[in-house]
Amino acid sequence: MNFTDMLLDAERQNRSLLCVGLDPDPARFPHHMRNDPDRIYEFCAAIVDATADLAIAFKPQIAYFAAHRAEDQLERLMAHIRVAAPHVPVILDAKRGDIGSTAEQYAKEAFERYGADAVTLSPFMGFDSVQPYLRYPGKGVFLLCRTSNPGGDDFQNQRLADVPGQPKLYEHIARLAQGPWNVSGQVGLVVGATYPAEIARVRELAPTVPLLIPGVGAQGGDAQATVQAGWRGGAGGTTAAVAVNSSRAILYAGAGADFAQAARQEAERTRETLWRARLFD
Amino acid sequence: MNFTDMLLDAERQNRSLLCVGLDPDPARFPHHMRNDPDRIYEFCAAIVDATADLAIAFKPQIAYFAAHRAEDQLERLMAHIRVAAPHVPVILDAKRGDIGSTAEQYAKEAFERYGADAVTLSPFMGFDSVQPYLRYPGKGVFLLCRTSNPGGDDFQNQRLADVPGQPKLYEHIARLAQGPWNVSGQVGLVVGATYPAEIARVRELAPTVPLLIPGVGAQGGDAQATVQAGWRGGAGGTTAAVAVNSSRAILYAGAGADFAQAARQEAERTRETLWRARLFD
Repeated sequence: MNFTDMLLDAERQNRSLLCVGLDPDPARFPHHMRNDPDRIYEFCAAIVDATADLAIAFKPQIAYFAAHRAEDQLERLMAHIRVAAPHVPVILDAKRGDIGSTAEQYAKEAFERYGADAVTLSPFMGFDSVQPYLRYPGKGVFLLCRTSNPGGDDFQNQRLADVPGQPKLYEHIARLAQGPWNVSGQVGLVVGATYPAEIARVRELAPTVPLLIPGVGAQGGDAQATVQAGWRGGAGGTTAAVAVNSSRAILYAGAGADFAQAARQEAERTRETLWRARLFD
Repeated sequence: MNFTDMLLDAERQNRSLLCVGLDPDPARFPHHMRNDPDRIYEFCAAIVDATADLAIAFKPQIAYFAAHRAEDQLERLMAHIRVAAPHVPVILDAKRGDIGSTAEQYAKEAFERYGADAVTLSPFMGFDSVQPYLRYPGKGVFLLCRTSNPGGDDFQNQRLADVPGQPKLYEHIARLAQGPWNVSGQVGLVVGATYPAEIARVRELAPTVPLLIPGVGAQGGDAQATVQAGWRGGAGGTTAAVAVNSSRAILYAGAGADFAQAARQEAERTRETLWRARLFD
């Protein structure tokens, strides 16, 4: 099954648009595990178990593992997700961006070593920095398009003088992802939730690609406006998927021994908000 | 000592502009080690020992370690370089690019876990994706500016409609690196060697920042034209450093038991070509 189908399948089975971000920060772990990087796997696995029936995807952020020498725990976590939530795809959030033989090594890391279903990439170095990932049949890539941090304006919001219509850089990327770069249906986009008007613009330019939307929860995006701008579906089923990510608001919902239960409650609440947002007129 | 001073110091001591890239690919190792990822450390350490007096910098490419589950070998290699070549700075080639707490984790990975002196970054997400690295006093960042792969044209070569003078994206990045982003003298640029005219243009816009220039050797850039376009110095010493990278041409110069000696010869030859290129009129 290719990555887009996995996403739509998980959406249907879990009735969810919620991507659960796994950004394990030992300094914020529950009291009984706090500041213990050896318990990253245990912490994340408990979150996965508590949300396996609520998520459209899981998104481990590799930096949190790498900073703590915990690559082995990430490997174990990826294997655990396959067993605990076999129907939920896993997006490795790595934002890699390199070329040729180096990109091949990063693709091997993401898809062979960790067994991810998709990986986030920076498109800055151009199409040949994306191609090595597309050689893995069925695997997906999410290209950074419009990010909601203050610096997201620095380049992504610049209008390009020589492209017809003078689109902004992020609009140009959205068009490439829908068209010439998407030779095999494996390309999605990362679009921040802070500006729903920009999600709507990306959806207009890229009507069918899956969108990964961070920024709900701790980062403060409006969940409902986000879904209304990005999700496309109806009686015939979903035609354009969105996975709306929440990390810290779920992971750190509780600080006690019942942290996984607290995470579940927060995930359930967010899932409900996102799912209902589909039903606008 | 801050990163730029380390670079100039190594240039002087080793009379070199040559950055030795460490991209260990077990499939290309010498016969007696071939296809053995457990010997990545041993291979790289031998290259370091053979070129410690010839390099302005070493540049391990992290993807080659990550693809082979060899982070522990990268840690040992970084520690070995400190002992075998204490005067040669180490640039971790990672091309990270993320924001806020995630960028903090990546900075921790590069500077605390691996002890790198500098790291390569993608500027796509803007200034706040760079700031967390600048909080490490004396450490350096090299921002992707103009890359020499075919896809480098896709975005980097686009003219920006709303910036005065309508510079190309890479020219805009060069100006930011010289000016507003370079609050503490910690910022350098990555500029491919394939088009010396573009290196000269970057040097015009960013007259004092260090340049990391990949693309000589296996990637085929012209060593002499590269130095003439980027290096600035004279009787008073070097005013603008360049580190011209060669990886595969050096690493895989020999396939026998004497591979380190072959690597040294190739490194010596390249160092000589680069060093002489300074003496143009």
